[in-house]
Amino acid sequence: MLGFDLKSFGFLHLCRMAKKLDVILSPLLIDNFTFENKTTVVIDILRATTTICTALENGASFVYPVETLEEASRLKQNGYLAAAERNGEKVEGFDLGNSPAEYKPERVRNQSIVLTTTNGTRCIRLSEPSDTILIGAFSNITSLVKYLKKDEQDLILFCAGWKNKVNLEDTLFAGALASRLAGDYEWDDDAVELAIDLFKGAKNNMLDYVSKAAHAQRFKKMGVSTDTAYCLQEDTCTVLPVLTDNKLVNIL
Amino acid sequence: MLGFDLKSFGFLHLCRMAKKLDVILSPLLIDNFTFENKTTVVIDILRATTTICTALENGASFVYPVETLEEASRLKQNGYLAAAERNGEKVEGFDLGNSPAEYKPERVRNQSIVLTTTNGTRCIRLSEPSDTILIGAFSNITSLVKYLKKDEQDLILFCAGWKNKVNLEDTLFAGALASRLAGDYEWDDDAVELAIDLFKGAKNNMLDYVSKAAHAQRFKKMGVSTDTAYCLQEDTCTVLPVLTDNKLVNIL
Repeated sequence: MLGFDLKSFGFLHLCRMAKKLDVILSPLLIDNFTFENKTTVVIDILRATTTICTALENGASFVYPVETLEEASRLKQNGYLAAAERNGEKVEGFDLGNSPAEYKPERVRNQSIVLTTTNGTRCIRLSEPSDTILIGAFSNITSLVKYLKKDEQDLILFCAGWKNKVNLEDTLFAGALASRLAGDYEWDDDAVELAIDLFKGAKNNMLDYVSKAAHAQRFKKMGVSTDTAYCLQEDTCTVLPVLTDNKLVNIL
Repeated sequence: MLGFDLKSFGFLHLCRMAKKLDVILSPLLIDNFTFENKTTVVIDILRATTTICTALENGASFVYPVETLEEASRLKQNGYLAAAERNGEKVEGFDLGNSPAEYKPERVRNQSIVLTTTNGTRCIRLSEPSDTILIGAFSNITSLVKYLKKDEQDLILFCAGWKNKVNLEDTLFAGALASRLAGDYEWDDDAVELAIDLFKGAKNNMLDYVSKAAHAQRFKKMGVSTDTAYCLQEDTCTVLPVLTDNKLVNIL
C-alpha cells in the first residue's frame, strides 16, 4: 500500500488538463482559431453587447441578433420590437438604435427584440461553431466570471472591434476578464498578455482612457458620450445572455 | 499690405496636411489598409528585421528576401550566401539561420545574402504596393526616426507577428517608434494607441517584459535566449535597409 495519499500530491489536479484561453482582437483574425468545442464570449462594449445585457436585465423576453436590415425589418412586421444601428446611428424606420439608454424597462419588458448592429451581431454569427456563445460586457462581468470559473470548455474572448479593426474598449474588456480568470485558464498567445497589460495600465481611470478611443470620439461627435461612461461601469446587470435557438436569453 | 507675416501665424503649417500613421498588428489585418503611396516599415523583431540590419551593418552587399526554400536554395547554387529559417530554427543545408549572432563581419562582408524566414520575408512581399519599404528594428530605431521625420508620405508600421498571430515584441516596437514620431504624424486607429500604451508600460524593463512573450519562450526552449536581449537593444546599427529592385540595401 502506498504510504501517501495521491490526491494530496495533486495527482488528480495534474491529470486534468488546464482550460485554454484565447483572445481574438478582430474578426479578421478568426482564421487563427477554431471555435469547435469551445465557449465563446462575444465582446462589443460600445455598444452591442452592453445593450443586449441591458435589454435582458430590463425584462426583454429575448434578443434575436440578425445581420441584415432586411431581416430586422421583416421581423418588425411580425410584431418584434426592431433595433438597428449602422455606423453608430439608429437606422430610420426602426423602433430602437444601439444605445443602452433606449432599452428602459417600460420599453422592453416582455418584448421580443430583433437587433442588427455594425459589428456585434456579425461576430455572434461567426462564433456559431462554438459549443456555447455568451455575451460579455463590463455590465455583466461578475456573472460571466462566476459562470466561466465553473465551465469546463476552452474559452475564446472574441472582440468585435470596429469594422474589422482592433479597438481599445473591446481589448480592455478582454483584458479585464482574462485578469479575473487567470488562475483558471492557461494561454500561449501574446494577444492575451497584450489585453491584460493594456487593462492593468488603464483600470484606474477607464473613462479617461477610453475617451481617446476612436469609437468614443465618434460618440462625442454624435452627442452620445454619456453611453461611454455607462458601458464601462461594472455589474449594472446580473444577467448572462446565451445563444439558444439563434436567440439570446438570460440563463441565470 | 497685411500687418503681419502669414508664416509666423502658422499659415503654411495649416495648409500642409498632417502625415497619417497606421499600425498593422498582424498580416491577417492587411485588408483594412492600403499600401499605395505610403512608406511601410516592416517589423519582425525576433528576428528577421534585426538580422537584416545586422547583416548590412556588418558589410553584406545586400539581402535578397525570398518566400520559399526552393528559391533560396537555387540562389545558393548561384553563389549567394543562403540563409533559411523555419519555426525559429535554421534549415539544414543552408549557410545561415535567422540569428543575428551568425551574421558576423568576417562571415557577411561583401557577400550577397538570400534570406527566407517564417514571418518577416512574407511581410516584405505583402508590402510591395508601397512607395518605399523600410526595415525596422530596435537595432536601427534612431536611423529610422531621422528618416521618417523628413519623409513626406503617410506611414504604415507593419508587424509581422508569429504565424498570423499578434505578438508582443513587434507591437512594442511599433509603439516605441510611434512614440518617437508622435509630433510628426496623426492617427485615428486604436491600434496605434494600443501599441504606444503597451510600450509605455514596458519600456523600463523591456527584456523582462518580452521574456513572457510566446516567441521568447520558444527561444528559451531552443537555447538561443541571448538573441532576445540583443534584439531589444537600441541603435546597435546605423543602417537603414530599403527595398530596391527586390533587394534590401542600406540607403544611408
